[in-house]
Amino acid sequence: MAVYTEVSDEELEAFVAEYDIGAIESCKGIAEGVENSNYLLQTDRAIYILTLYEKRVARGDLPFFLGLMDHLASRDFPSPTPLHGNDGAALRDLCGRPAAIVSFLSGMWPRRITPAHCRTLGLAAARLHDAAVDFSISRRNNLSVLGWRELVTATADAADDLSAGLGKILSNEIGYLESVWPTNLPSGVIHADLFPDNVFFLHNELSGIIDFYFACNDFLAYDIAVCLNAWCFETDGSFNISKARNLIQGYTTVRPFAAEEIAALPVLARGAALRFLLTRLYDWLNQPEGALVKRKDPLEYLHQLTFHQSVAGPAEYGLVNR
Amino acid sequence: MAVYTEVSDEELEAFVAEYDIGAIESCKGIAEGVENSNYLLQTDRAIYILTLYEKRVARGDLPFFLGLMDHLASRDFPSPTPLHGNDGAALRDLCGRPAAIVSFLSGMWPRRITPAHCRTLGLAAARLHDAAVDFSISRRNNLSVLGWRELVTATADAADDLSAGLGKILSNEIGYLESVWPTNLPSGVIHADLFPDNVFFLHNELSGIIDFYFACNDFLAYDIAVCLNAWCFETDGSFNISKARNLIQGYTTVRPFAAEEIAALPVLARGAALRFLLTRLYDWLNQPEGALVKRKDPLEYLHQLTFHQSVAGPAEYGLVNR
Repeated sequence: MAVYTEVSDEELEAFVAEYDIGAIESCKGIAEGVENSNYLLQTDRAIYILTLYEKRVARGDLPFFLGLMDHLASRDFPSPTPLHGNDGAALRDLCGRPAAIVSFLSGMWPRRITPAHCRTLGLAAARLHDAAVDFSISRRNNLSVLGWRELVTATADAADDLSAGLGKILSNEIGYLESVWPTNLPSGVIHADLFPDNVFFLHNELSGIIDFYFACNDFLAYDIAVCLNAWCFETDGSFNISKARNLIQGYTTVRPFAAEEIAALPVLARGAALRFLLTRLYDWLNQPEGALVKRKDPLEYLHQLTFHQSVAGPAEYGLVNR
Repeated sequence: MAVYTEVSDEELEAFVAEYDIGAIESCKGIAEGVENSNYLLQTDRAIYILTLYEKRVARGDLPFFLGLMDHLASRDFPSPTPLHGNDGAALRDLCGRPAAIVSFLSGMWPRRITPAHCRTLGLAAARLHDAAVDFSISRRNNLSVLGWRELVTATADAADDLSAGLGKILSNEIGYLESVWPTNLPSGVIHADLFPDNVFFLHNELSGIIDFYFACNDFLAYDIAVCLNAWCFETDGSFNISKARNLIQGYTTVRPFAAEEIAALPVLARGAALRFLLTRLYDWLNQPEGALVKRKDPLEYLHQLTFHQSVAGPAEYGLVNR
């Protein structure tokens, strides 16, 4: 969760007056999300989410993010729909920050992941990839290989303070991934942050996917590599092959993987583990003052990275290279 | 805000099934409140607040707190109403903690306080005192003079690290307050934590008072002394006499102060400043791991304490001793 910015009554009233959504009845900061300030905004008509974009979200990227949510919602994908104000704009300023109101999605993110969740997630990820095919804007993934190199450099001095030998592990890994990272897999718009807290379920059905603020153009299979890390490891660190198999089977029901995508999964999973290890490490070292967020342990991802390094091939994820 | 406890889907479903409130549609941690974990619980019928009582709230005090809210709501005071389950109980366990569901109150707490807010607050505080007159349970204020002495002792070593000379100021002040603290003012149930974030307004009317988890039996005027500190100082540290006058005038519209209550206000205000200075200092030194709360600056209250120490009499709060 995060609430970085306190919104005054007068500023909120003036902001909401730009929309045709009724009169404010309450507005409470939500203890979810990390990058932005999120409020649950209740009017006499409905509930909405008000988001103030904090400094880690580049203003220039917001038309991509909001446009993507608009596009997905128009394809009946259960993403939040940005509300457009009386002037037609979905994006305006509040307390000196870019801000938007999006529709509220029912459901709760699963605290205890089951293989069934993973199958449903895989299916939804493929639907997302399909629905975004004709989205007209694109955005480079600045948290892919090139970005990781920058983060390895930025965290090099401090990595060993957190865990002895970590600096060396990171510089070896980035060198390896730079040399083997695929260059020609099927690409498109990916969510890039499909963690459980961004995926809502209601009555065992997926009811919404939120937080498109890392979405970008990259290999489609990389989205699934992120999911392998975020959904298929148990709290004791063991890799749950049933969850992984369900995830992939759900995905390929909608969009079959090409042979080279399956072959690339171990490397993509290593990359995904390194990406979250590096950003968590960076955040650990650069915790913003006053941020109401729980710091996430970077070493959880070191464990996952080590696991993927030991994997001989995609068969170990429950996949057979057919 | 605070979310100390993560509630799993299954535990939440089982808990909510004990009430006749419909099916869960969402449940989000709220970034408000400090002592407990609060969730905004939405069902297909209404919105509720789910609170898990964390360790600083004594289990034995919960019948007082929940009973008081029941009592106030039955007197049409706009406090949250505890929901009673199918077994009649308002209090049960969730994730190993005492937990309750209370009604949701519309409105927002005022970020920018006006004198009009203070008048409305004073009026509501007096209504609260009146409505609680025939409440049958009582609870000693363990954060009054005796409790302050314990906190002065507990924070003595560390106080000077935060601000040189603070330890001496605290031990002098507690000595002074012990010698002059009133013993015979009109008493009753007070809220004892009437800060702006516990008071909701909607369309300039007071719509609710929440967070009764410091409520206790004490001098009624002490509640107003807390408000003087929490509502009448500007962010630059200056004391706003118009706000203070409005607060007192609002209160005395409903319940006139006796002469000895007015005379005692400067001492009560010193005590209230010391109380929040001490608990903030204690929290500063004992921040729980993983608490998603912003630490509040103890020294804000040192400033207020110093102000009250310099006050010659109640006239300086905008009151004339009539």
